[in-house]
Amino acid sequence: MLDLIIKGGTVATAADTFRADVGVRDGTIVALGLDLGAAAEVIDASNKLVLPGGIDSHVHIAQPSGEGIVMADDFESATRSAAFGGNTAVMPFVLQERGTPLRTTLAAYHAKADGQSYVDVSFHLIVSEPNAQTLGQDLPALIEDGYTSFKVFMTYEGLALNDREMLEVMATARETGALVMVHAENNDAIRFLADRLERAGKTAPFFHGPSRPIPVEREATHRAISLAELVDVPVLIVHVSNREAMEEISRARRRGLKVYGETCPQYLVLTEKDMDGLNMEGAKYVCSPPPRDAAHQQACWEGLQQGVFDVFSSDHCPFRYDDPAGKLNPKGRTSFRWVPNGIPGVETRLPILFSEGVGKRRITLQQFVALSATNHARMYGLTTKGSIAIGMDADIAIWDPEREVTIRQSGLHHGSDYTPYEGISVKGWPVTTIVRGRPVVRDGELVGAKAHGRHVARARSAYATPRGG
Amino acid sequence: MLDLIIKGGTVATAADTFRADVGVRDGTIVALGLDLGAAAEVIDASNKLVLPGGIDSHVHIAQPSGEGIVMADDFESATRSAAFGGNTAVMPFVLQERGTPLRTTLAAYHAKADGQSYVDVSFHLIVSEPNAQTLGQDLPALIEDGYTSFKVFMTYEGLALNDREMLEVMATARETGALVMVHAENNDAIRFLADRLERAGKTAPFFHGPSRPIPVEREATHRAISLAELVDVPVLIVHVSNREAMEEISRARRRGLKVYGETCPQYLVLTEKDMDGLNMEGAKYVCSPPPRDAAHQQACWEGLQQGVFDVFSSDHCPFRYDDPAGKLNPKGRTSFRWVPNGIPGVETRLPILFSEGVGKRRITLQQFVALSATNHARMYGLTTKGSIAIGMDADIAIWDPEREVTIRQSGLHHGSDYTPYEGISVKGWPVTTIVRGRPVVRDGELVGAKAHGRHVARARSAYATPRGG
Amino acid sequence: MLDLIIKGGTVATAADTFRADVGVRDGTIVALGLDLGAAAEVIDASNKLVLPGGIDSHVHIAQPSGEGIVMADDFESATRSAAFGGNTAVMPFVLQERGTPLRTTLAAYHAKADGQSYVDVSFHLIVSEPNAQTLGQDLPALIEDGYTSFKVFMTYEGLALNDREMLEVMATARETGALVMVHAENNDAIRFLADRLERAGKTAPFFHGPSRPIPVEREATHRAISLAELVDVPVLIVHVSNREAMEEISRARRRGLKVYGETCPQYLVLTEKDMDGLNMEGAKYVCSPPPRDAAHQQACWEGLQQGVFDVFSSDHCPFRYDDPAGKLNPKGRTSFRWVPNGIPGVETRLPILFSEGVGKRRITLQQFVALSATNHARMYGLTTKGSIAIGMDADIAIWDPEREVTIRQSGLHHGSDYTPYEGISVKGWPVTTIVRGRPVVRDGELVGAKAHGRHVARARSAYATPRGG
Amino acid sequence: MLDLIIKGGTVATAADTFRADVGVRDGTIVALGLDLGAAAEVIDASNKLVLPGGIDSHVHIAQPSGEGIVMADDFESATRSAAFGGNTAVMPFVLQERGTPLRTTLAAYHAKADGQSYVDVSFHLIVSEPNAQTLGQDLPALIEDGYTSFKVFMTYEGLALNDREMLEVMATARETGALVMVHAENNDAIRFLADRLERAGKTAPFFHGPSRPIPVEREATHRAISLAELVDVPVLIVHVSNREAMEEISRARRRGLKVYGETCPQYLVLTEKDMDGLNMEGAKYVCSPPPRDAAHQQACWEGLQQGVFDVFSSDHCPFRYDDPAGKLNPKGRTSFRWVPNGIPGVETRLPILFSEGVGKRRITLQQFVALSATNHARMYGLTTKGSIAIGMDADIAIWDPEREVTIRQSGLHHGSDYTPYEGISVKGWPVTTIVRGRPVVRDGELVGAKAHGRHVARARSAYATPRGG
Repeated sequence: MLDLIIKGGTVATAADTFRADVGVRDGTIVALGLDLGAAAEVIDASNKLVLPGGIDSHVHIAQPSGEGIVMADDFESATRSAAFGGNTAVMPFVLQERGTPLRTTLAAYHAKADGQSYVDVSFHLIVSEPNAQTLGQDLPALIEDGYTSFKVFMTYEGLALNDREMLEVMATARETGALVMVHAENNDAIRFLADRLERAGKTAPFFHGPSRPIPVEREATHRAISLAELVDVPVLIVHVSNREAMEEISRARRRGLKVYGETCPQYLVLTEKDMDGLNMEGAKYVCSPPPRDAAHQQACWEGLQQGVFDVFSSDHCPFRYDDPAGKLNPKGRTSFRWVPNGIPGVETRLPILFSEGVGKRRITLQQFVALSATNHARMYGLTTKGSIAIGMDADIAIWDPEREVTIRQSGLHHGSDYTPYEGISVKGWPVTTIVRGRPVVRDGELVGAKAHGRHVARARSAYATPRGG
Repeated sequence: MLDLIIKGGTVATAADTFRADVGVRDGTIVALGLDLGAAAEVIDASNKLVLPGGIDSHVHIAQPSGEGIVMADDFESATRSAAFGGNTAVMPFVLQERGTPLRTTLAAYHAKADGQSYVDVSFHLIVSEPNAQTLGQDLPALIEDGYTSFKVFMTYEGLALNDREMLEVMATARETGALVMVHAENNDAIRFLADRLERAGKTAPFFHGPSRPIPVEREATHRAISLAELVDVPVLIVHVSNREAMEEISRARRRGLKVYGETCPQYLVLTEKDMDGLNMEGAKYVCSPPPRDAAHQQACWEGLQQGVFDVFSSDHCPFRYDDPAGKLNPKGRTSFRWVPNGIPGVETRLPILFSEGVGKRRITLQQFVALSATNHARMYGLTTKGSIAIGMDADIAIWDPEREVTIRQSGLHHGSDYTPYEGISVKGWPVTTIVRGRPVVRDGELVGAKAHGRHVARARSAYATPRGG
Repeated sequence: MLDLIIKGGTVATAADTFRADVGVRDGTIVALGLDLGAAAEVIDASNKLVLPGGIDSHVHIAQPSGEGIVMADDFESATRSAAFGGNTAVMPFVLQERGTPLRTTLAAYHAKADGQSYVDVSFHLIVSEPNAQTLGQDLPALIEDGYTSFKVFMTYEGLALNDREMLEVMATARETGALVMVHAENNDAIRFLADRLERAGKTAPFFHGPSRPIPVEREATHRAISLAELVDVPVLIVHVSNREAMEEISRARRRGLKVYGETCPQYLVLTEKDMDGLNMEGAKYVCSPPPRDAAHQQACWEGLQQGVFDVFSSDHCPFRYDDPAGKLNPKGRTSFRWVPNGIPGVETRLPILFSEGVGKRRITLQQFVALSATNHARMYGLTTKGSIAIGMDADIAIWDPEREVTIRQSGLHHGSDYTPYEGISVKGWPVTTIVRGRPVVRDGELVGAKAHGRHVARARSAYATPRGG
Repeated sequence: MLDLIIKGGTVATAADTFRADVGVRDGTIVALGLDLGAAAEVIDASNKLVLPGGIDSHVHIAQPSGEGIVMADDFESATRSAAFGGNTAVMPFVLQERGTPLRTTLAAYHAKADGQSYVDVSFHLIVSEPNAQTLGQDLPALIEDGYTSFKVFMTYEGLALNDREMLEVMATARETGALVMVHAENNDAIRFLADRLERAGKTAPFFHGPSRPIPVEREATHRAISLAELVDVPVLIVHVSNREAMEEISRARRRGLKVYGETCPQYLVLTEKDMDGLNMEGAKYVCSPPPRDAAHQQACWEGLQQGVFDVFSSDHCPFRYDDPAGKLNPKGRTSFRWVPNGIPGVETRLPILFSEGVGKRRITLQQFVALSATNHARMYGLTTKGSIAIGMDADIAIWDPEREVTIRQSGLHHGSDYTPYEGISVKGWPVTTIVRGRPVVRDGELVGAKAHGRHVARARSAYATPRGG
């Protein structure tokens, strides 16, 4: 007998939309059909969409953020928020600490996550100290252990790698089959511009944007791609915000390179104008790269439509606003430079994409599934996740496509005290989230256990295979 | 009880690959799982791939070809050949005859196809006489009847439309929701070049290629797209052969237009060099646009990888070689100009793409499924075809991924007396083809009835929806 | 002794700016220096610029314009206006009349021009009937006689050539060494759009612009270039109005082709908005291609700066506005379609370019000279014109760079009853115009004789030499 | 009376070619005409071309080159060689020494040059230590003194600036009106690749090329342009070697930026293949960026034809080959990495461009003059140089356009013991070189004094004016 049947819904995958019941046993999808017999539990999905649970492959949770700054989410709140947003897995980052063995740092993150997660978790690594130990021993071993992707930064003090280091990391990725993610902004240029703005007394959060104009991102994007080209390794450019950076990705593909792209909700529905005249409240929108303008929003939509972007993530990086350990920390009040970078978004990512994308016919339901779940699983080697098919984990989000919601902080479940998407109305909302066959959220109520989520070791990704490989 | 279970295979869709049995009832897929119970018939698919049956959306069958020229395939041979090549549906063209009511011509094609087809059939229309009757009455009515796509030619005497006619046809497509397919080559330029070649005594089949160089195709591609842009209607450029024409498609997308592309096996594995020094035997390779060179083959692969091409078709257009009603007709012996354009390929399309594509890791199995079946169904409104999912027609091809075959005319089932792919070795071959639950080819033997195939009326395609629609 | 010394001015060529006196004998520049001795006549050019006289290589004068429409200028008024605008030579078109020997038509134009021109004249031919007689005999002979350039139209009823004819003309150009000029707009598209606008009751002159949107011009530009590519002959795209058409020129150059561009004042200072709400007065701005918007104006400036455009002409094509034989002819009042295409501009071309270009530092004085005179002479084989150098015709315009003028119809000398540039203020104006050593305009007064201008036979241009030639 | 008349020649400027005598007084051109009267000296230029003396704006002379390496030319030999190559001025670099006041270093160069130069000299500065003293005081003062251009390096240990430093230098250029020249290669990437090659035992000079592949140059080119874009200052990319880097320049111009380009003879006539199988002799061709292949040579020609390149320089950077202080220094024998970068070329630059360019009709004589002299003068503010016009310095090269020469080391006058152009045959050679009215080389014989050359202070260049400035 089946453990669970999700009955009467319209199932969608990245390829198909069809009416079927979904049968689950031992956390796995074992049957699809219209007459699946009996089950211990039946969830009625009539008039609902039965979609693969969202995978948010770009989130920051409980990550140390320097001098007195504290992230607004621990694993409990972040994964609860994720579940309410229709996600069944999140992929947070383990930030390598200089001078500390990478394994030690990793263990600390596991300690924070294990037993504290409502949804499944799989860690990326952030390489900040690419020395011989890291590159020659730690990374190869961790990749074998299923941490098969890592991210490098071209900006942020203490994190930014120089080009030589980037190349060394990429060479390691090529040798080990790992996937390299790049945050592409030119650190020197940002420092130069920020200094100049500060000297001119332009210190309000609004000036965060002008300190990181489009050429700063386009330059680093082209550079990251060029370095990857020299090593002949695929590369993923994360959180792309504008047409010019997109064009770097497209140009590289026309040269035959494997270059992937990610964009995020902030580049679809926010603009630099959201910070106009806001004074300190502008801090709520400080993230990097910064949102641009309407023309670049349109470009990002085209990128989603046309495949420039393979994945759509939140870059959830939550801080509290009205908090000395958050956006309004004492130094942050003196300059945009010290406002912590990042905004919360793990819960709102999918409703925004669904409503603005599928609802407004900018993308198909298949594209939604691919961008929200399937491609993330493929990109990162989550072999049992990301689709509704026999043998896959029963990670499922049941959506009410007719439900209309105005996004409000009061309705969200993250640890932050605000949402940058306050007041945006959407149609379509995830009402039930099932992780490996167990409902975590059901009809809008938390029903899962915070120990249900597990860490998932990953396979190497085909996306990471070099050209001709 | 189920009518049929396909057991033990590895199923692939455009989204997923998974181990599952496939249960069929009344020609429809009704169950996917690992324990489907009993069935009237069980086909063992162990160690095999269970794929959506191929849809070849660009074939010419029994189409009148002018003065004494006869196509090498009628529906019986063409659909038999298609079935052996892993296809469960083909989409031939109904060529409007000037001066004859379109309905009358259509009826004649139905008469040829009905009861004579091993696989399902769905007709496109070719508009050659876009007068008021055609545009104002016949096309709109036929679109309502499920003939939801039509093709226009920018070349061939008697077929080529001028730009004004193209615009009128496109405007009709926009109004009716039909999809426009374009054969993009500049007829005037071809005539000019052909005349010049003939005057220089360059009349061998080899000179077919030089009479249609890349700028001839690039020009018409850009023009077709520009005309579609003026009417603001999507457009599909069929049988794209080279990087420059591809770039026109990509440029148009960067301007935000909905432009789709198709390529074919001849542009992946043949080149103009195949005709070198062949004298009349070069006629075997005469098709339009002509195959180019290795660099453009590579470009076409990139187009398949990166989504420039949505569909991969054969452009099966078979003539016999050693036949006065075929390639070697009396006039054809005097000049390449009179060699009938077209090559057979409905049976070899998928093995070539599988072996050269999936086998050589140029594309994934998911891309193969999308390019060979799913995208065709979506592009053209075949709502119950193109995937393996609950409720879909049980149109399935079972592939032996390890089977090695050297393509030989002697092994093929079309009506032509040669194959341009003679001698090419492939790994992976469709061994069983099932159309709506009934095997047509089983383990390499013809087991179906030629009356099994049906005409399929189609819905309007989402691909044909104008921007913002 | 010298006939004339122009004394004390600042001379500029396309290469240099320098203080020198200019000595003239027998209509030719024979000395440059600071101490030239005596002369029969001395013109003081202190505080003035001494520039090569403008060559306007794109003007229409006394050209038959169909049913009851009369051009506003004969040679007398047009060349007088040209002289007042700082021009020493104009290049009008001889429009081939179908059914009439080209020589006969040419003779008629000569009859109109000879003895009636204040400045020198050199004719281009417009090929409207590219039959064997024209291509095989008349054109080659006329090219030998010094009519070394011809223009073809892709639009206008009765003028538009089809692609086959374009290719034949281009092949003739390649064989004879002539330069081909192309008016690039897609006639079929314009007719289609115009019909649609008329059916919608949109017949005011304003709708002239919407009947010829940018893709109409971009398409034809790419097509003309592609046809030239097939024949491998250089080509000049005249009166380019927008960035997209410019990009076609640039793309072609990146493919290694010799493609040249021309733009005109209307694309720098007029926009489609000039016709907003004007009703019939919009007819004053009807020209083809139509002016676009501010962004495309900026693009045209960049094209002048960066060499996309080799020449800057007026496309002077004057009609009277308030005249039944002009813009407001009876049919023109019923639809934009019958409003004669063209605007006057031979007198204002150079002041606009000088003031908006040199004055606002968009271009250098050297670029001004090149774009207004030198490049025209080079492009079209006027070997003794276009610069101030020993041995050149003493064709000189003396400019007062400080003179401020507001352009008014009342101040101009053409035959039209309006100027589309009414009210535009410029700084810098030609005060004296000298043709082959004889002042035609001196200090703003007409002093020349209308018989002074001569027809100039031209050499073949190096611009017309094929690649590698 | 005139001091000198150059009689009977064909004069060419960047704008014109004309027959004229050139009259000189006090080192200045004071008369152009056909009847200049008497002079103290007359040089017969019958059947010769009288061209502006070449300006080689990119040469390295007597520049310290690290540990035991000595440049092969002092000012005497370099300027003698320059004069024999038809040059009347050279622009060497003053390399800032870390820890030494810039003025002090400059004085040392002047000490080496003054009284030791056959042709005029004007120094650029190389900024290697962009600290507050340099940027805030030394550079602004030196720019006022006429050193109005400076170069920055993105490669070479001890020279390469980081992006922050680049930005600071560019900001200084914007404030002071100086022109920034950039050597664009990514230093980190080169070090990474060189290390890898060395680890693989690939140490022969041939591997210099593979250590600096095209993406290394393209990346740095785009980065330099992006940094200049952020500061909104013009920038010149020197010694561009390939189509991809050129495309970065063109793309930037299409964005409206002022970006200039330079290429050199080594990118027109050498390729990486010249080093094939040469073992240590490959060291003769070691320069950066390295020569590429035939397709990129063709690209560079197109860049010269179409204005991607404004100037054509030698990048003369001479070392002796068979010399422990030169190419074959002890460390250089162990790895390409220690082979000094640079090749001699000041004497051969112009004959190569003339013969391959003008002679083979790739460029016009006007383009030759512009690329060899006029544009250099304009680019760098040499207001009295670069053309043949009244008031200009009488810097003239008299060329015999028919003279055929095979380039041989034995025929050259530089300090190196080889030429990388050995064996190349050219047609057209400068036979007489006149600096400010005084012959330095006459009919192939040295007749000048090594103290004749002077340092020339320069004006700010219009090329350095920001957009809209």
